[in-house]
Amino acid sequence: MDSERIHSSPQCPPSSSPAWFTEAGSPHHRLQWQVTRTLYAGDSPYQHIEVLETEQFGTALVLDGILQTTAADEYIYHEMLALVPLLSHPHPARVLIIGGGDGGLAREVLRVPGVQDVVMVEIDRAVVEVARKFLPHHTAALDDPRLTIRYEDGVQYVAALDAADAFDVILVDATDPEGDGPGQVLYTTEFHRAIRAALLPEGVYAQQSGTPIYNPDVLTRVAHDVDREFPVCRVYWCTVPTYPGSLFTFTMGSLGPEPLVPIRRLPHGAPTRWYTPRIHAAAFALPPVVAELLPERVAAAQA
Amino acid sequence: MDSERIHSSPQCPPSSSPAWFTEAGSPHHRLQWQVTRTLYAGDSPYQHIEVLETEQFGTALVLDGILQTTAADEYIYHEMLALVPLLSHPHPARVLIIGGGDGGLAREVLRVPGVQDVVMVEIDRAVVEVARKFLPHHTAALDDPRLTIRYEDGVQYVAALDAADAFDVILVDATDPEGDGPGQVLYTTEFHRAIRAALLPEGVYAQQSGTPIYNPDVLTRVAHDVDREFPVCRVYWCTVPTYPGSLFTFTMGSLGPEPLVPIRRLPHGAPTRWYTPRIHAAAFALPPVVAELLPERVAAAQA
Repeated sequence: MDSERIHSSPQCPPSSSPAWFTEAGSPHHRLQWQVTRTLYAGDSPYQHIEVLETEQFGTALVLDGILQTTAADEYIYHEMLALVPLLSHPHPARVLIIGGGDGGLAREVLRVPGVQDVVMVEIDRAVVEVARKFLPHHTAALDDPRLTIRYEDGVQYVAALDAADAFDVILVDATDPEGDGPGQVLYTTEFHRAIRAALLPEGVYAQQSGTPIYNPDVLTRVAHDVDREFPVCRVYWCTVPTYPGSLFTFTMGSLGPEPLVPIRRLPHGAPTRWYTPRIHAAAFALPPVVAELLPERVAAAQA
Repeated sequence: MDSERIHSSPQCPPSSSPAWFTEAGSPHHRLQWQVTRTLYAGDSPYQHIEVLETEQFGTALVLDGILQTTAADEYIYHEMLALVPLLSHPHPARVLIIGGGDGGLAREVLRVPGVQDVVMVEIDRAVVEVARKFLPHHTAALDDPRLTIRYEDGVQYVAALDAADAFDVILVDATDPEGDGPGQVLYTTEFHRAIRAALLPEGVYAQQSGTPIYNPDVLTRVAHDVDREFPVCRVYWCTVPTYPGSLFTFTMGSLGPEPLVPIRRLPHGAPTRWYTPRIHAAAFALPPVVAELLPERVAAAQA
């Protein structure tokens, strides 16, 4: 999740071996994925966008050299970021997604019973257009009439919200805070304060907070921020094969609901590939090596 | 965990970039680790042994080109393979370890209250000698008077055991079954049958069963075997940053104890970095994508 572009590395340059895409997990660790072909490459006003056909995980979206999502393992991240908060909330009618341009998160949100309005604020229209073309399963719900897509800055959108437009659930599905990608403003104290102000009573909020294996500072900063701004802060995790570090975290802020166990269920028969009520609860069990990065009262609540 | 040696790959040969060690997670995926220096390289009668100093995770033991354990993340695998079975057993006095030559598993076993005798049967003496020299934390307990190390074939050792020498807990810490490494015989029906015969009443058994992300067949085969041979079969998982695929499984067979929650604790103040009683229980929560690989009654018991 490090923003270093290793395309220019003197060792093993992908430019000379186009069949492999290389990403740095840290300056000292790289992942390589065999690529059948490049389906798309182009620059938006915000970032460099690539769509690669990988042998291992199918179609992959890459932003500024960082693999964001693949057709074959996206369900882990999207189910966990959507379903844990929404199934912890008693009535998640209005949901805001900041980022999420590939569409996978909106798809998971829209299948939760009770969801009435979803606003997805994605700064980069090109990501949505590229995803519609190359990631049909991700984008399967983007034409749902309950969904409104706004192509604008998520921070400004949240800051300008009227109380009348507040949300039950806010999810941040952004690029990592390192480097100079558009995602970095979503990891600040000011943003977390604005998020809280944009929530209805009993509102809950979740964002990805990276892997503590390589970027412990991100989790520590986000969790301390959220713990200061929200009466309830909780951290949960999953494992994503295509993200370096394997242990990948989400941080939640809640104005009321305790998310440690789900209070609602998906309809009987709604298929998931990662999420279950037991996985929901298990995801809040933190290894000491993660708990020690968190505010003491957060770690204690999950011990 | 694929046994393919990609050192000979035409793309990005590590031989021309000695600062990076490369391992294939599958034919379509590679991990690379920056290496400061090679501390040891040599051939035993059983395998090629390397000890590398990595920037990311410190000293790493590599067998036949596959990274086995590192100084900085070994605690995850060793705590989970040792503590989940031993803290599920009412009186784990006699423990057998098959493999485990790096010493890390014996260290974790020996700190569980009630452990009186540990036999470690490692086929390759060179692994133990190299570990003693370069992995001091792994091998810290190898001189414990309760431990006997036998340098012989684990399969033959188990097959020749008298009933009078049976064990409360048997742990298999072996290389992967792919390729022609010494570990492959530890994944057979015959071996599982012999393991059961070598257990005392209430005995429990656990072995690593790889990552279902890249090698689902290994988990399926082991779990079906163990389910046939033992009255109780359970599967649990953790995530290991240095193993490709991130989601890494263990399969347990039990003659009595139900391991889903621990029935014993480590002494108060005994430090762990990964294991907690909550992590123990959470590790048995299986995503549907894993549960569907298992015998139906195993998946149902953990649903």
